[in-house]
This record gives sequence, structure tokens and C-alpha cells, in this order.
Amino acid sequence: MKFNIALLAGDGIGPEVINEAVKVSDAIAKKFNHEITWTPALTGACAIDAVGVPYPDETHEICMKADAVLFGAIGHPKYDNDPSAPVRPEQGLLLMRKKLGLFANVRPTFTFPSLIDNSPLKRERIEGTDLVFLRELTGGIYFGEKGRKDGGETAYDTCTYTRVEVQRLAKKGFELAMTRSKKLCCVDKANVLETSRLWRETVQAMEKEYPEVTVSYEFVDAVAMRLVQWPNSYDVLITENLFGDILTDEASVISGSMGLMPSASVGEHTSLYEPIHGSYPQATGLNIANPLATVLSAAMMFEDAFGLKEEAEAIRTVVNKSLEQGIVTEDLVAKGAKAYSTSEVGDWLVANL
Amino acid sequence: MKFNIALLAGDGIGPEVINEAVKVSDAIAKKFNHEITWTPALTGACAIDAVGVPYPDETHEICMKADAVLFGAIGHPKYDNDPSAPVRPEQGLLLMRKKLGLFANVRPTFTFPSLIDNSPLKRERIEGTDLVFLRELTGGIYFGEKGRKDGGETAYDTCTYTRVEVQRLAKKGFELAMTRSKKLCCVDKANVLETSRLWRETVQAMEKEYPEVTVSYEFVDAVAMRLVQWPNSYDVLITENLFGDILTDEASVISGSMGLMPSASVGEHTSLYEPIHGSYPQATGLNIANPLATVLSAAMMFEDAFGLKEEAEAIRTVVNKSLEQGIVTEDLVAKGAKAYSTSEVGDWLVANL
Ligand SMILES: CC(C)[C@H](C(=O)O)[C@@H](O)C(=O)O
Ligand SMILES: CC(C)[C@H](C(=O)O)[C@@H](O)C(=O)O
Repeated sequence: MKFNIALLAGDGIGPEVINEAVKVSDAIAKKFNHEITWTPALTGACAIDAVGVPYPDETHEICMKADAVLFGAIGHPKYDNDPSAPVRPEQGLLLMRKKLGLFANVRPTFTFPSLIDNSPLKRERIEGTDLVFLRELTGGIYFGEKGRKDGGETAYDTCTYTRVEVQRLAKKGFELAMTRSKKLCCVDKANVLETSRLWRETVQAMEKEYPEVTVSYEFVDAVAMRLVQWPNSYDVLITENLFGDILTDEASVISGSMGLMPSASVGEHTSLYEPIHGSYPQATGLNIANPLATVLSAAMMFEDAFGLKEEAEAIRTVVNKSLEQGIVTEDLVAKGAKAYSTSEVGDWLVANL
Repeated sequence: MKFNIALLAGDGIGPEVINEAVKVSDAIAKKFNHEITWTPALTGACAIDAVGVPYPDETHEICMKADAVLFGAIGHPKYDNDPSAPVRPEQGLLLMRKKLGLFANVRPTFTFPSLIDNSPLKRERIEGTDLVFLRELTGGIYFGEKGRKDGGETAYDTCTYTRVEVQRLAKKGFELAMTRSKKLCCVDKANVLETSRLWRETVQAMEKEYPEVTVSYEFVDAVAMRLVQWPNSYDVLITENLFGDILTDEASVISGSMGLMPSASVGEHTSLYEPIHGSYPQATGLNIANPLATVLSAAMMFEDAFGLKEEAEAIRTVVNKSLEQGIVTEDLVAKGAKAYSTSEVGDWLVANL
């Protein structure tokens, strides 16, 4: 098969981790007789520096034409102190999500047996955790009308959802639950918010189409608690944009392997794969960043975007092997053991595929 | 001194835990020569059953006239399945907060040395944790305009804040930080929300009035992570209503002592003290609920509402003693040890004050 992949390396350690994912993907393509064409494009702070905007039209066109997008990370400390600056890297992210119609963010949290002791949680709490959040990504309070009144003294943000927006996200949730343990949790705040009541009634109405799926409804505050107490009691969770932002990040640290968690954003026009970690500016150029989350994002891409399960499994298997054999970057290295560089880890993966 | 305290026992285990807090408070009053008049009033599901509304006018008048309010818990399973039912216990809670002007919810999370192993977190992560959230409680998306459009197909909620609302909450935060380690964290989502940008600019402008306080600004998703990773790195945190709902609940479980955490809601007309746990309907009438969070809420009341530090300390000391000696309800009992009933714990506290 032939694939055209847009390559958005972004800022900070983005280019370094992307580089290793490309190496591994190319090796997999060679092994399984596929042909990948990578088309690099600018996004984030580096795009602002180069052309003045964080998500240039040219980048958008490249993404629209691609079979999938592989994304690194964006953000630069020079934008950190003033969240109201007119041009910021994050705006590129939001614009990209909206313009590409990436309405569902798929955020798995799982554990690696060899890394379980990295979790801030006790072993008996975290063991067996394997959950997936589907976060709505192009609606809600992120994209609603916002502004000031009363000469700047009053600020407002509007959270809006339509039934159709909820349905298309929930559909993905039900479908995913069908491929897993058939448990779906709808996270909302229906005791307070009208949008949450729309979410809940919409999901309730869809239950009969998926009679095998057991659906539970939980308030966002309760989920924030249970995620810390018994993360292994969850399977698939669906939620709106802002709740998803908070809860997926909370979920990502409980595994103790945040540097390893991949993600996908899927939707109308294409799909995008990225590590959940940030641009880690302090490590830029040092060849020390952990590339595994990006490599595992490429595995998700092979499986979900191209339907190539075997290729994805091959990547996951070699990643597991590297972890077991301690071929890891400094964030994961055992006391006294040698840390491998970003590119050494990538080389090892390619050599052991 | 003479105090008039409104007593809102509420639903479920509310009356049982309130009962023990009253016993302990009366014993303290006797010991330190104070006189307490308790005025019971209805709220929650029991108020709906009795008079059709969850926060009757009569209850409101009793609260307005009182020097403080001691609150149990509300909620009943018969309201759980339909969050859009026209009359619900939670509406009473929201109405009460608004009408009493309780704009600041004070939510400490701390640890008890003897209970540290109950935490889902590893000892080294949780040890030393002693933080306080100030959650804004009468504004934001809870109270903004909400409704449906397009024949019910679109739902919306509006989050609104005025500078004055932020200032009065932040002022309490700065003042609290001054009495503690002089560290204040403002939690927001200023990279996305206009209301958050108002929060941030308002708090930034107040910094110069409190030159000794070190203020940090963190995004809500980052805080959701750090609370699990390094809760002991926080001191005082201020945040808006919905973020506060999620984060204070997340914070409450990390201590492993949720059944012991007290809270206060303070504001314009009076102040209210309540355990953070819910109405625990399954345990109603069984005399097994842990009364300590309510007893510690009474201690907060003595200290903060009445300025009686010694009385508060006396309560905390006897609570600590009960924990050390294992005079605890079944939720805290060591394997193989005897569980005490709710009222036995209260009796023991009174006898050992
Ligand atoms: C950078 C920010 C706008 C973004 C979000 O809130 O969606 C980020 O936190 C994320 O989750 O991808
Ligand atoms: C019951 C509910 C409306 C309430 C809230 O969200 O404020 C509760 O979760 C709380 O935190 O006191």
C-alpha cells in the first residue's frame, strides 16, 4: 500500500521524537512492503516565527490531502507568560482541530508491566488499568462565543452543543465499547448544566441501538475521584471538550508512563496521531526526550488510519521489548543503569523490529 | 459567649453525623463556658418531601439569623436517575449558596499520620500534603444563563464572571496564603477562556498589595495532573466554580481520608460548615457512618466563625487521639479490629475531650 502522511513536527522536542517515529515507520513500511511519502509542514511557534501564524493555510492543505497526520508537540516558553497574546501556538492547535473536523480525541491510558512502579498510585490501585477516553474536540466552551462586557469588567464564555455533535461522538464511543469490554461511561454534569442534560438524553436515546453495551452516567467530579481511586474500574469514557481536557490529563499521570501515551484525533476529513506529552522546551536539542509515545502514536496510525493491525502489533511488540531490556531514555532509566539517547532508542527499535 | 447555630442535617446519614457533631460541640461549649442554641431546619430531599422545595424560605430565614450554619449532607437515590427533574435536592444547595452569598468554599486537604496508608497514592507522594482550595461558589457556569434553542436540538450554558467577583475570592486567597506558607496558585484555563483571562489579570493586578505572597498561574489540566503526582507541592489554590468542583473532589481522595475532610463556605451573610462527603444513602440509619468530617467541620466553625482557636484545637486533638487509638467506624478500621458505631465514636470523643 501507499501512504501520504503529513508530518507536523512542531516545536521543542517535537522534531526529535517525530524523527524516531519516522525511522520506525519507514522500517515497518519496508518490512511489510508499503510505501510512505512524508510531507513536512509547519505548525506552532516555529510557524509563527516563519510565517506569522501558528497553522498556515499551506499546512492545512497538506493535512487535507494526506491519508493521516503525524504530529509532534507545540509550544514555546516565550508565549507562556501572556495567555492573552494575540498570536499563540495553541490557537494553531484549536484552528487545526476545527478546520480538519477532528471531533473525537482518542486518549488511551494503559500500563506497562515493567513500568508499573513509576505510577504515583499504589500497585494494587493501578494494576490492570486499560481505559480510553473519547473527548469531544471541536465544540463546547472552547469554540463558543466569548468576550467582555461592561467596559471589560465582565467576561463570558459560552458552552454550546448540538444533538448531532453529541451523537457522532457517542457513536464512536459505543462502537469502541463494542470492540472492548462493552462498558461505556458518559461523563457529564447533568445536575447543573443544560449542555450536559442534552449529552445525557442523547446518549440515553442511543442505548437501544447498542443493546450489548452497558452504559453508566457519572458526574465529572465523581469521575475525577474514581480515576485516582480505582482507575481499573473504567473502560470507555465519553465526555465533552473541557471535561475531557481535565480528565484525560489526570488519567495520563496515573499510569506513571505519561511519556509513553499515544493519542489519536479522528473526524471528518483525516486523522491525526500525536504523543500526549508537550514540547518539553528544556530538553530541546539534547537528544534525551523519550520517543516512545510518538512511536506508539505511529502504531495507532497504522492500525486505525490504515487498518494495518499486524504492522501496529509489530511496533508495539518491539517497544515492549525495549522497555523490558531497559533500552530507555533517562526518564525511565533504572537507578544506576545507562540512559539511551532519543536516537539510540529509535535505532534500537529499527534494528529489532 | 452565646451562639445561635442553624442545624441543617439533610438526608441520608446527614442526621446521624450531625448528631455527633452537636454532641461534641455541646461538650466543648460546656467545657469553655459557651452557650449554643441549635435551630434545626429542613433542606434537601427531606424538605422536598415535607414542603415541596429543597430550600424552604423558613430554612433561609433561620440561616440568615444564625451566627453560623452546620450542614450534614443532602441527596436521595430517588432523584439519581433523572438529573433534569424539575425539583431536585441539589437545586436547594445551589439556591442556598446563592441566597446566603456563600461565595468562597474553603476545602482543605491534609493527611493524618495514622491514616496515610489509606491513600491510593504511595506514601512518598502524599506525605506532607497540606493544601487548601478556595473555590468560587456563587458564580460561573453554575449560575449563568442556560437553555435550549432550535427546538431543543441545541443546548447552551454561559459562564460569566465580573472583576468584583474574582477580587473578593482572590482577596480571601491572598489573606489565607499570608497565614500559611505565602504561596498562592491561581488555577485557570487562560489559554482558552475569556473568563479565565479576567481571573488571571485580576489576580495579577492584586499581587502588588501582597508583596510577600508568591503567586503562580497554572492551567486546570496541569493542576489535575500535579495533584496526583506531587500534591505536597501545593499550598493555597484559588479557582472558579466548575474547576473547583472537579479539583476539590480529586484532591479529597488523594489523602485517603475523604471521610474526614471538613469544609467551610463563607461569604456575605453567614458561614456554613459541612463534611465534604455525601449523604451515603446505603448507610442511612445503620449507625455506621464516620462522623469525624462533621465533627472537624464544627471545629472549623469554632475557629473561623467564632474566633475560638482553643476550642477548635481541643476538638482536633481528641479526633487525632481517637484515630491513634483506633476508636473508628468501619471505613477506617484496621483488619481484624473492632469497628465502632457512629454514636460510639461521638460518645468516646465527648468522654475524652
Ligand atoms: C493547549 C490547549 C489549548 C489544549 C487544550 O486545552 O485542548 C491542550 O491542553 C490539549 O489538551 O491538547
Ligand atoms: C451537588 C452539586 C450541584 C454540587 C456542585 O457541583 O457544586 C456538589 O458536587 C458540590 O461540589 O458541592
